[in-house]
Amino acid sequence: MDEFELIDRIRARLARDAPRVRIGIGDDAAVLAPLSGGIVISVDAVVDGVHFDRRWLGWPDVGWRGWCAALSDLAAMGAPPVAGVLSLVVPSDEDEANVLAMIGGVAEAADAFDAPVVGGNVSGGRQLALHSTVIGEAPAEPLRRAGARVGDAVWVTGTVGAAALGWRLLEAGRADDPEAAPFVARWRRPRPRFDVMDAVRSVASAGIDVSDGVLQDLGHVCEASGVGADVELARLPRVPGHRSLAARVDADPDALAAGGGEDFELLFTAPPAAGLGGVATRIGTVRERGEGPPVRALDADGRERAVARAGHRHFGA
Amino acid sequence: MDEFELIDRIRARLARDAPRVRIGIGDDAAVLAPLSGGIVISVDAVVDGVHFDRRWLGWPDVGWRGWCAALSDLAAMGAPPVAGVLSLVVPSDEDEANVLAMIGGVAEAADAFDAPVVGGNVSGGRQLALHSTVIGEAPAEPLRRAGARVGDAVWVTGTVGAAALGWRLLEAGRADDPEAAPFVARWRRPRPRFDVMDAVRSVASAGIDVSDGVLQDLGHVCEASGVGADVELARLPRVPGHRSLAARVDADPDALAAGGGEDFELLFTAPPAAGLGGVATRIGTVRERGEGPPVRALDADGRERAVARAGHRHFGA
Repeated sequence: MDEFELIDRIRARLARDAPRVRIGIGDDAAVLAPLSGGIVISVDAVVDGVHFDRRWLGWPDVGWRGWCAALSDLAAMGAPPVAGVLSLVVPSDEDEANVLAMIGGVAEAADAFDAPVVGGNVSGGRQLALHSTVIGEAPAEPLRRAGARVGDAVWVTGTVGAAALGWRLLEAGRADDPEAAPFVARWRRPRPRFDVMDAVRSVASAGIDVSDGVLQDLGHVCEASGVGADVELARLPRVPGHRSLAARVDADPDALAAGGGEDFELLFTAPPAAGLGGVATRIGTVRERGEGPPVRALDADGRERAVARAGHRHFGA
Repeated sequence: MDEFELIDRIRARLARDAPRVRIGIGDDAAVLAPLSGGIVISVDAVVDGVHFDRRWLGWPDVGWRGWCAALSDLAAMGAPPVAGVLSLVVPSDEDEANVLAMIGGVAEAADAFDAPVVGGNVSGGRQLALHSTVIGEAPAEPLRRAGARVGDAVWVTGTVGAAALGWRLLEAGRADDPEAAPFVARWRRPRPRFDVMDAVRSVASAGIDVSDGVLQDLGHVCEASGVGADVELARLPRVPGHRSLAARVDADPDALAAGGGEDFELLFTAPPAAGLGGVATRIGTVRERGEGPPVRALDADGRERAVARAGHRHFGA
């Protein structure tokens, strides 16, 4: 595989006109128009065999997931996407068709969320990887992890645990069960919540996206805010069928909902009476930090329950 | 090695106040102040065993090189640096001290060129890697690869081939020879040419940084500009001692100067009479594209000479 030929093919799949792109792929660097609100920037990565398994994830899905995982950090801050750059690691014996199919998935996501790829880099290496850096325009007041107040409620958009359950179903070879489709789709094709981020930001005191799992991500908010929080497991919103599908792969449905990552929903704190009109579900309460764990999971009787982290653990994999 | 502890330690080494950083490391994304000129963005990567060999490159040098290779693309466009983000791949059995020493080198380069790290990501994987995305402020007219005109001269700042020769000396175990020091230093600690980029941009019709080697990078300029060019090998500016050190590692000194990459000097086209007061050396001429190779290397008699690519070949390594 020739480096420059591959780059030309990648470029052909990604190049598109966008109003805020002054100089796109092909120069030493890309140039974007000024963003009057300020620049929001984040980076994320997917590594072959760590974040996905090529035996059961299609290459376009790898690209889509990679680009969307990075974009979701912009949604968490309330920043509409502008553009981004890719850094690829491609082993010399990798099939070029796989790489181009993955890039096709990036291009689909770039189109879906108006976030074109304006530059990139290709390196050799033993393990295929896609590192995505994305830029958004800062809103007047970006939503941050710090800011949660005692007495706020904890809220989450959409449903949680579906992506983690989708991953389990894929791993278990049950992805073709008809009921599995919505879960598997959530894992394969996550959608950053740009559609509701302004509504969330208008009421939220602090926020984050659900990438590590509700409990862990809420822990990040609590740590940055100097507070504690309780989550009522029974309130966690789930895709219909969650419980029965979880049983099919011997997984604890509550652990998936509370600890499963990569849903890319928005998790935030806001007053208990925040009128969010169906955008988000109230799942818990912000309290004083106190002694003990900063985030507690409570069962239906209000008793603390230990919930294992059910999400995919990247590091060290 | 715990992921979150490692991230905390990395963050402690990189965190610093900078006037244009509104939100730095620790939130879902970083936020920078608006850049009235527009945003220049580029990404580069260093992969263990591909771009460096840990047996003879110190970890701080790995970090410095990684950050500076990305910054050099900003210098090529004439864009002063603002900030950037890192994406790390860290194998679970990697010594944390190595990772932190590498990050220390990034921090040194960030300080040296006023380009703080404002965010990042850490992933697992089998091969340590550092992906650097940097942002600069666009000048009124960024220098581009397209724009070289027939009749322009070809110029290069500083000296070329020194980094490639430094690499060869390291590989050959000759880095401790007293005469080797300036060459080895050029490879270990490259310096993007922010110091001369404005002078270059004031006269240049097109430009690029020397990352792949003079002939290859000039080829990119010619391709983008629709022209050809001739380079006079004897005119390529070299660090004193280049010829004798090259002989010590059985390397062709002209091939190193014309084909050795990673000097991160600025290579550009400008009128033959461009007054650059010692900033750059005239090394060749822009001509019609014509038949034959777009870039030719000429010996002292004006005859074309085949010059092997002497630079480090990343892809597929």
